[in-house]
This record gives sequence, C-alpha cells and structure tokens, in this order.
Amino acid sequence: MPGSGFGRILRLTTYGESHGPGLGGVVEGCPPGLELAEADIQADLDLRKPGQGGTSTKRVEPDHARLLSGVFEGRTTGTPIAFYIANEDQRSRDYGELASVFRPGHADWTYFKKYNGIYDYRGGGRASARETAARVAAGAIAKKILAVRKISVQAACVELGGIAVPPEGMEIDKALSHPYFAASEEILPQWDARVKQAREDRDTLGGVALVVARNVPPGLGEPVFDKLDAVLAHALMSVGAVKGVEVGEGFAAARLTGSQNNDALLPCGKFASNHAGGILGGISSGQDIVLRVAVKPIASIAQKQRTVDRYGNPTKILVGGRHDLSAIPRIIPVLSAMVALVLADVLLMQARVEFVR
Amino acid sequence: MPGSGFGRILRLTTYGESHGPGLGGVVEGCPPGLELAEADIQADLDLRKPGQGGTSTKRVEPDHARLLSGVFEGRTTGTPIAFYIANEDQRSRDYGELASVFRPGHADWTYFKKYNGIYDYRGGGRASARETAARVAAGAIAKKILAVRKISVQAACVELGGIAVPPEGMEIDKALSHPYFAASEEILPQWDARVKQAREDRDTLGGVALVVARNVPPGLGEPVFDKLDAVLAHALMSVGAVKGVEVGEGFAAARLTGSQNNDALLPCGKFASNHAGGILGGISSGQDIVLRVAVKPIASIAQKQRTVDRYGNPTKILVGGRHDLSAIPRIIPVLSAMVALVLADVLLMQARVEFVR
Amino acid sequence: MPGSGFGRILRLTTYGESHGPGLGGVVEGCPPGLELAEADIQADLDLRKPGQGGTSTKRVEPDHARLLSGVFEGRTTGTPIAFYIANEDQRSRDYGELASVFRPGHADWTYFKKYNGIYDYRGGGRASARETAARVAAGAIAKKILAVRKISVQAACVELGGIAVPPEGMEIDKALSHPYFAASEEILPQWDARVKQAREDRDTLGGVALVVARNVPPGLGEPVFDKLDAVLAHALMSVGAVKGVEVGEGFAAARLTGSQNNDALLPCGKFASNHAGGILGGISSGQDIVLRVAVKPIASIAQKQRTVDRYGNPTKILVGGRHDLSAIPRIIPVLSAMVALVLADVLLMQARVEFVR
Amino acid sequence: MPGSGFGRILRLTTYGESHGPGLGGVVEGCPPGLELAEADIQADLDLRKPGQGGTSTKRVEPDHARLLSGVFEGRTTGTPIAFYIANEDQRSRDYGELASVFRPGHADWTYFKKYNGIYDYRGGGRASARETAARVAAGAIAKKILAVRKISVQAACVELGGIAVPPEGMEIDKALSHPYFAASEEILPQWDARVKQAREDRDTLGGVALVVARNVPPGLGEPVFDKLDAVLAHALMSVGAVKGVEVGEGFAAARLTGSQNNDALLPCGKFASNHAGGILGGISSGQDIVLRVAVKPIASIAQKQRTVDRYGNPTKILVGGRHDLSAIPRIIPVLSAMVALVLADVLLMQARVEFVR
Repeated sequence: MPGSGFGRILRLTTYGESHGPGLGGVVEGCPPGLELAEADIQADLDLRKPGQGGTSTKRVEPDHARLLSGVFEGRTTGTPIAFYIANEDQRSRDYGELASVFRPGHADWTYFKKYNGIYDYRGGGRASARETAARVAAGAIAKKILAVRKISVQAACVELGGIAVPPEGMEIDKALSHPYFAASEEILPQWDARVKQAREDRDTLGGVALVVARNVPPGLGEPVFDKLDAVLAHALMSVGAVKGVEVGEGFAAARLTGSQNNDALLPCGKFASNHAGGILGGISSGQDIVLRVAVKPIASIAQKQRTVDRYGNPTKILVGGRHDLSAIPRIIPVLSAMVALVLADVLLMQARVEFVR
Repeated sequence: MPGSGFGRILRLTTYGESHGPGLGGVVEGCPPGLELAEADIQADLDLRKPGQGGTSTKRVEPDHARLLSGVFEGRTTGTPIAFYIANEDQRSRDYGELASVFRPGHADWTYFKKYNGIYDYRGGGRASARETAARVAAGAIAKKILAVRKISVQAACVELGGIAVPPEGMEIDKALSHPYFAASEEILPQWDARVKQAREDRDTLGGVALVVARNVPPGLGEPVFDKLDAVLAHALMSVGAVKGVEVGEGFAAARLTGSQNNDALLPCGKFASNHAGGILGGISSGQDIVLRVAVKPIASIAQKQRTVDRYGNPTKILVGGRHDLSAIPRIIPVLSAMVALVLADVLLMQARVEFVR
Repeated sequence: MPGSGFGRILRLTTYGESHGPGLGGVVEGCPPGLELAEADIQADLDLRKPGQGGTSTKRVEPDHARLLSGVFEGRTTGTPIAFYIANEDQRSRDYGELASVFRPGHADWTYFKKYNGIYDYRGGGRASARETAARVAAGAIAKKILAVRKISVQAACVELGGIAVPPEGMEIDKALSHPYFAASEEILPQWDARVKQAREDRDTLGGVALVVARNVPPGLGEPVFDKLDAVLAHALMSVGAVKGVEVGEGFAAARLTGSQNNDALLPCGKFASNHAGGILGGISSGQDIVLRVAVKPIASIAQKQRTVDRYGNPTKILVGGRHDLSAIPRIIPVLSAMVALVLADVLLMQARVEFVR
Repeated sequence: MPGSGFGRILRLTTYGESHGPGLGGVVEGCPPGLELAEADIQADLDLRKPGQGGTSTKRVEPDHARLLSGVFEGRTTGTPIAFYIANEDQRSRDYGELASVFRPGHADWTYFKKYNGIYDYRGGGRASARETAARVAAGAIAKKILAVRKISVQAACVELGGIAVPPEGMEIDKALSHPYFAASEEILPQWDARVKQAREDRDTLGGVALVVARNVPPGLGEPVFDKLDAVLAHALMSVGAVKGVEVGEGFAAARLTGSQNNDALLPCGKFASNHAGGILGGISSGQDIVLRVAVKPIASIAQKQRTVDRYGNPTKILVGGRHDLSAIPRIIPVLSAMVALVLADVLLMQARVEFVR
C-alpha cells in the first residue's frame, strides 16, 4: 500500500501534481443506488476555492471535477467512481528557482531525499495543497453515504493567528456562511485586523479548526489499531499543515482527574457530558464526535529566508508564486471531507457485524 | 482489514482479552538474519510492568512472552514471528458486576453496541490496556530492525496531573531510570505529592508523554495519505487513553507566524531549528522526530459513579478490580513501541524506492 | 502485506514452522454471536490427520487446536479469534542433512535464496505442509459464518495417480466417508492397487480434487481484480502442491464454442447448464461453484536424487523423515477450508452493498 | 479493499465502463527515475487493438492513453502515475435491449443481483473486456521496472478452437509478429480455417495462452498465502474469459510420479528440467516461469439464445453490438501485463528482505 490510497472498504486513491495536467481520484466501494451528480461534488469544491476571507491566493482554478465512471443515469452503480480535475491556471515560470533551491518549511528537501533527487518541484508537485481538491471531491461522495443514515460533518475555524473564538460564542453550524469559515461572526473584526497585520509583516498565520460529526450511531470503529479516533487522527494529520489532533478534551484531558473527565451514562444512550468527544475505547458512543486540529502557518512567506541549494550550498530564497496567507479557511472543507471519508468507511464496515442479526 | 493489524510490510496482528487464556501477536515481514531472543522482548515487557512509580495496579502479571515461530538458531528467518503471553493472574470474580453495568469512561457500552450485546466484559476484555503488552513485544522486534540503521526511539513522561517538566530541565535519555519514566528527576517530589493527593481523593490522573526518534534518515514516509506524521498519529492515537497527538510544535504552531515556524536549512542536511518535529510534507527530514501525546486520566476511580445497566436503567457503580492511578508511566513503553513499529515499516518501504539506484 | 495473511474483512494470519514450538493463526473480522467451540475446529483438523487411506505419513500429530481469544461463553465476540496447535512429535534428527543439501521439488533452495541463506530447514520449516493445519482450523470458523446462510463447501478426490473417477459415478457428498476422500467408492480398488505399486516403486503420486460450494447466493465477488474466481484461484493455488486450478469447464472450455459453453438463463434464477461453474463476470450466479485442482506428486521420494549442496557442489540426497505418498487425501480438507474462507469473506463484503437497501 | 485495486507495493487501481466517458488507472509505488513516455504505453495498447488476426470486433477505439501524473521531464517521480483512455467510439444504441434482458454467458445477471438491480448495461459496463486496456497500460509501466533487472514477459496463443500448436513447433518469442499472436507460424492455416468455420456457424471460439517470464531472479514471492504462483493465478484468473490456470506441468503433474516430476538441482543455480514452471514452495527458482491459461469462447454469439428478462420472464436474445469471435489474440497482451504487474510487485517487495545485507 504505497500511500496514495485511504480507506478499507470505501477506498480513495488519488494522483496528481500541482503543475501537471491535472489531478483526480478513484473512490472504490461506494454502495449502488445513491444519487450523485457532478454538481454535488462541485458544491464542496467551491468551498475550497480561494476567496473565502482575506487569506487566499490569487491563483484562480475553476477546479471543475468531471465524473469519469461509476455513475449511471444519475446514480452510483457500486463500481469505482473516478473524477478528474484539470489544472488550468498553472504558471510554472513562477517556480523556476525551485529546481535548485529548497523552500524552508516545505517538502522540497524531503522529496529530494526520498526520491533520489527526482521530483516535480513546480508548485510543490505532489506535495502541493492542490492535492486536497481530490480529497474534497471524494468527501462529497462519502457524505452521500453518510446522508443515508443522516450523519453530518461540520467544520469551522475556531482560532486564527492566536485569536480564539470564545467557547460561549461558538456557532459551528453557521460557519460556512462566515468569512474564514469562522465559528463566530463576532470574532471577524479581530481576525481581519490580525490578517492585515500579517500581510504588512509579509508573514503568514496558523490557526485551529474544529470538526464535529453529528448523529453518528454507536458502535463504529474497530478495537485496538483501527480505533475510530486513530483512523480519524490518521486522516486529519495526513492533511498538509496539520501538526496536532485532539479528540474531545484532547490535551486538556491530561490535566483533568478521572472524576472530572468521565462522562456519566444516562438512560436512552445519553451521557451527562462529552469529554470523550464521542469515542470510547476507539468506538463511537453515539455522542457528537468532536475533533480539534492544529494548523501551522503557511511556509511560503514574502521574506528572504536562509536555505541551501541541491548541491548543499547555503543561499537565500524569496518564495515567489501565489500563496495563501493562511491554510485557514481553505483547509476547512478538506478536514470535513477526511472525516466524512472515515465515517463512511467505518459505517460500511459495521455492516459486516450486523450480518448475523 | 478488520482492525487488529497494523503496518504495511512490517505488519503486526494481535489478539487476546484481559481475562481469556492469553494474548499475543504475529509480526510479519521482519527481514531475516537479525539476532532475536525472548530476552530481548522481555526487557521491553518488563518496562510495562506495574511498579515503576506510585501509580500502578497491584495485579501481578509475569508477562512472559514466548516466541513460537520465525526465529531459528537465534536469528530471525524472515517468516512470521509469533509470540504468546499467557494470562496468569486473572481474577474474574472482581468483574462480575460488569456483566450488566457499564463503567463510565470505559469501552463497555460501545462494545455492547458494536457487537450486538456480546462482549467479554471481564476486565475490559479486548479493550483492556492489557492488549498493549502485545504492542510492546512487537516493538522490541521493530527496534531490532531500527538498530541496523542505528535509529533509536525514546519516550518519557513530561507532565503528570497538570504538573509539567519545565523545558529547560528535560532529560529524556535518562527517563527509563526515573520513577514515572519522568523526563526530569527534579520534578519527582511534586509528582509524588500530586499522586498522593489523588489517591486520597480516590481519583486518577492524566499526563503528557514525549516521544523522540533519533537518527532517522531523511526520506521516510509516503506522500498524501500515509504521511509519516499521519501514520504516527494513527499509531499513537490507537493506544487506549490517548486523546491528542502533536508533531513538533503541535498546537503551538497554530500561534506562530510562518517566519517564526519555518526551519531554515543549513548545509550538510542540518536545520537551524526543529519546529517541524522532523517531518516535512509527511516525510522525515533527518532531524529528530518529536511527538507529544495527551493521556487522559484512568477511568476506573474508587468512587461511586452514575451509569446505566444493559437494560437502560439508571444505576450507580463502584468499579472494583485492581487499577492503575494513571496510565503514566506504563503507557510510555507502549508509545515507544508504536513509534518503533511505524519507523521500521517505513524504513523497509523505502527499500523499494532505493531499488533503482 | 507480507504474505502470511489472507482475506479482506475476514482475515486469517498464520505463523509457525514444522519443527518449531507450534503453529497457529488469528482470524479477524468474524461476526459476533456465532457458536464456536474447540471441538468444531477439531472435527475439521481430524480430517487432515494421517490415516485416511494408504497414502499418509506415520508422523502422529494430535493436532489439538486451542482457542486463545475471541470466544466468550461459547460464542464469538467479534474480536480476533486466535488458535494454537503445538508441535508434539517433531523428530528433527531426521532432518540433519537438510542443513546443507537441497531436496529436489521442495522449497529448500528457493527459501535459501530468498532469505539470504537463513531458513529453518527442519521438515521444510515454514514451507512444510504442516502449515495447512492453520488453514483448516480457520476454515472451520469460516464455515460457521457460511452456515448462517446455509452455504456448504464439499471437496473430494476425483483422480489419483492418473486414474480418474468417471463423471457418471461421482458422489461428492459421500467422499468424507470414503478412503482417500474419494468421490466414488467403486474406484477404491484401482486406487489401492496404484498406491501399492507406487510404494513398491519408492515413488509418489499426484491427483485431482474437486471442490463444490452449494447454496451460494448470487452477487458475491467483486468486479475486475477481485473476481470471485480470481480470489478462489489465489486461495487454492496458495496450497502447497497445487499446480492448476479450473473453474467450471476449465481448460475444456477452451475447446467449446460459445453456443456450447453458454448457460441459458431460466426463470427463478435457474440456468439450463453450469459450464461456468457458478461464476459469471467474477460474481457468483447462484449456481453451484465448481472448482478443480491439480495436485502434484509429493516431492519426497524414497530414492536417491541428484541435487546440490549450499556451496553449489553436486551431490545426491535420499530424503529421510516420514512422508505421505500423496498429498491426496490430506489436502482435501485444506482446499475445502480455503474455499470456505473466501466465501465467508465475500459474503461479509457484500453486506456493504446491501447497506442502502 | 473493494476489488478494483491490485498489488501490494506496486498497486494498480482502475475504473471505467465500456460506454462511459472513459477508463483509466492509477499506478502507485513505481520507483523514481525510470524513463516513461506515453509512447511506451501506447506500444502495448496497440497490441490489444482489434485486427491482429481474423477474430476481432470492428469497434475502432484509438485507445490513446494520456499520462496525467507521476512523470516529470520524461522520468517517473515515484508518485502515482495516472493514465486515462477516453471512450471515443461507443455506440450505446446497440445495447438498448440489454437494459431489460440478460445475455447468457455474460455478467449482466450477476451484476444485476450484486448491485440491487443497478448497473450500466451498455456494452457490459464495468464487466466489459474494455477494462483490460487499463491493465495493459499499467503493465507497460511494470515492464519498465522489470527491465531494470532484465526480466522479460512473453505470451502467445498455443491453442485456438481446439487446435493446439505442437510442443516441438513452439516459437513464443516470435508470437507478437504472427496473426493471433500464435506461438507458431505453421499452425496459421488450420486456425484460419477454424475461424472461418466458426464465423459461418455464427459461433465463437476459445483457446489456450502460454505466458513465460524469463530471467526472474530466485527468491521472489512470499511463503504461504502470497505464494508467487498464487498471486499469478489471481492475476490471470481476474482477466475476463479465463477459466483455468496452470503452473509448469499444471494438470499434467497430477499424472506424473514424484520421480518424474521433481527437477534435479544442478550447480550454478541450474536445474535438469522445469516441470515446476519456475516456482518452488511459492518462490521463484530462477528458472523460466511458465504459465498456461484457458480462455473460454466469447459469450456473444450471433444466434438467438434462451434467457430471461429482469422481471424473470423467459425470452430470447440475439446479442447485437460488435464483438470479437475469440478473446484470442486480444487477451494475450492483457495476460502479459498481469504477469508483469505481479513480478514487478514481488521484485520491489524483495527489496525489504535484502535490506539487512
């Protein structure tokens, strides 16, 4: 399993570089009979487009996903669903210098070492955030599966440049209608100011995302290695720029006592609290699944930085090209897609267990 | 892939419940020719035994791992290495009540829901922390592979009950000789006091672990979904009680700017800093791999707690049995083992890339 | 996936050498709630014992499989089911010469080359037919799953030493009560004579096995690479001594015309014939699945043979030890087990497709 | 693993239906640095085109494979290589009747049952032989990997319509320059006559293919379940129309004695014969790997056949559309591609074993 596939019985395999002909993916294992159109995928892809707040690149990619297989007369057939997104606005001339100099904070150097010096350096190649378009497209398919059981996934930005949305003002359900996909409208002036300052500083910002999955039935996930939280952490940490993942209380749980952290069980599958974040022993409890994700600042800054070239000589680089100022908010639909892919996979896996009933 | 296996070409499959006959595992894909004896595995298993600090259960398990295959005349043969650890001190009578009442903070309820009401409730069954003995045994084998390339993995406790080791006093290399596998000797009086207090409160504690891998060559890990950090997060989050994973700066990176967070490249494969934690674009950079793990407090507290029984009726439970007061320090060798398993796997995977050279 | 595992969501991982401490396996993915006892497994293992006809070794292995996990109060729990079979009658002194000389027709030389000269040569080590005991044990578990849907698997010997059971005399349902697990009682005198002759010639025999699965619902198997017949061929060809696999008409289909070979569809899911062997386009049709398997003669003959030693020098070898005269009939329960494992896996996989209904 | 992927560390995932927009695949795990151009793939695809003998459809598909990723400046980069082949000559009107009536010998009925009545019936949809174009394209990439170690794969037709090439006249190396990719030139008049007769009979023919891999180093393949012959049988049996697979002597081995069938070892890694077909204990021996494949006659015949419609009513069907008269010879490059994919995968897997040397 060479690393560009994800999932067990709902499986996504992706391909593509930032400045090659295009990128795409194949989703295997989708059940037959779900209504699916290109427009369903496009709706999610559009959320990932530049322009949702003041942090985005000026690269304009229509990012139109074309369905190539697995759908017949508007419904999934159960065979692999392939989609393709052509690269249409690549400007490789911006990246000439990258042929020989490594950008700090980027994967240039590690790809150079991994692949014996051979890599498509244009715009980060395979390591470009552009690959996440394929995740979003596949996530749209996963959400169709989740919808059969009325499971929803929502994500929002809860912190940007060190300024966090206060817990009491959190409105994650409205985030998609806010700039930065912010979990609060009131925080926006502060974030705008922080972004303005960073732009003046020729610098970039990080942030924190919250992802919540609702109406997940209890019993999903596997014991031991493929615990639901483990697979979710895998999924989220596989998104470029993510440096930390928390479930429920996360690192705060390390500071609680058992009596504070335990969630008392109530009748009818309810709990008195949700410190666990909806997962106990690696298996969904029926409560909301609550995840937090740390997003590092974009590595491409408009400042000269120390680095080396491919011959090991010290040099300086001023990264050109068109870049976001923060992975927030464009990473939000990507995180949401990854969680949807995981949940659809474990949901289909659980069918096996229900076989004997 | 039903969830009790981990790894791609170095693959561990485990089995066993807390109060069944025993537990064990099969390690596939180990190269031939490595010296391996039961004593190598025992050394690591002994680190997981109760008694390394004031936080452990009184259950006494000799935890002797017997090698059943894959080793001939003291060396690995390349065929699957199986090991078995008999359960010898199980006292199932302690767990009778668990047949019908769910313990808060445990997997009882989620297993009940997942498996149609059928589960081995004795001591948590498959969800018991006892399953981690198999991880530690397998980790000892993985470390033999890593040793060929002089890669080492070290883990330590850096925070217990909310009291953190200050960064300047960190001595991770000495942790295995300290109580609690603490990253500092000076912190011990404070931790002892915190533990004493918790015991008096009939409560339990959480903590934070640090794992560092040294001498990892650049180029390990795969792009996109099986990024090295993603697989490490999967591995660590799959350990019971873990609620958060950070790579390098982790959540702190969300508050840094790009200019603060980027690590400048220096000649000879060096970097001016290691905010990234040794991984760029999902691939090892050659720097130390630095991971932090949040460990929740043990759910079994010596207090009556609200819960429900299997018929949905509200009740209270006082969890009997013998329990640790914290997963720290016994989780430390488990985390170390999981990181070793991941690194050995990606190291062997990279052989494929080097094929053409 | 290093090769000692088989199956996708019902997955068997095995380990063990002929003359090590023992052998065993782990079955992941079995649904919860099935009645399972060691006696169920033992019944199938006993079919693999020496002594079912005149072709068997005198090695006496009680082959008692002990269940180590995954069963609670007589029923499967859904967690991994491990079983272990101790080696009790190994006589390694028989195999001393094998440390330095390769047996023709055996895996000695290929293991020597694969594993850099390191392999457990005693009795064939991992390559011994003894590993098939683990397949049979796991097959017994798979059959429990199949029984839920009333699917059965039967196997029989239809040819031995070149003497075939005539098609009109085929009674596969009675084979388990016949010597050689023969598909006919009338063939027995001829086979006894053939075996007697081979024994006098200090030679060994091959044969052909027939495997039939009944009551398989239509719709099992996956398009393209994991066609049901492809996975069955994989399963059967993975059994030592198997050199050919046919589905339905098999090689005879190459000589038929389309009008002869096509099976006309009739109402109620019936067909006018079953040339296809129950599989169309890689997916079960609801008809009997019919497979034929070529079994080569046992390589260990009581004659001096030309070979080389590990230093490449020509020499001769007279293979000692205790050996069967034919893999027939002991291979019969192994083939049956492999087909059961495949069918149980695809049956559980299909649950995913039925999810939306 | 939902069935449209094949391989472990060199992994092909395919998609596409006969009458959808197109078909394609993603090859993961190819080492970096291999020269690869679209022309390399095209050369193999052209072998699969109609017109190599008198047996082919008149559907004209240019079958141009476009490379979408994983190649930079003419060389593989180690990232996924995607290719896409547009469907350009689909004439769906030929297939209207198939919406409601099942073709005998085809996958219509089994897809109907598998996918809850939902399937793309046009030209067989996903079950069309057209999907094999993706296998051939991927095989061309695999052959690039094999070429590094000078491993070659050749395939030829050795029997058509019951008329076999005599063993003494076999010239497999010249097959690609013969009509029908025949292993002999002398057989051609007989085959032409047989084909002419079948066409007059409005019937179709089957045949037998031979595949030989040369210069395969000893040591490839894994013990037990992923034996090299098992994986090869999986690969070959997964090709539509294949009903049997033999390794070396195949079914003939069932009629040999051990003394006849064993291949004596000679110095320098040679053997006195190759009854085994180059594989011992599931691992390559260094001899030629020799495989035989039974190909059933094409199911689409120009005769009225009995069948049922989707409501279960008996009816008759005369299959329209444009069809081959035999899967021979167009299946030949497909078989060759599948063997190349398997060998490249096991070759890369073996790098792991060589790690310690």
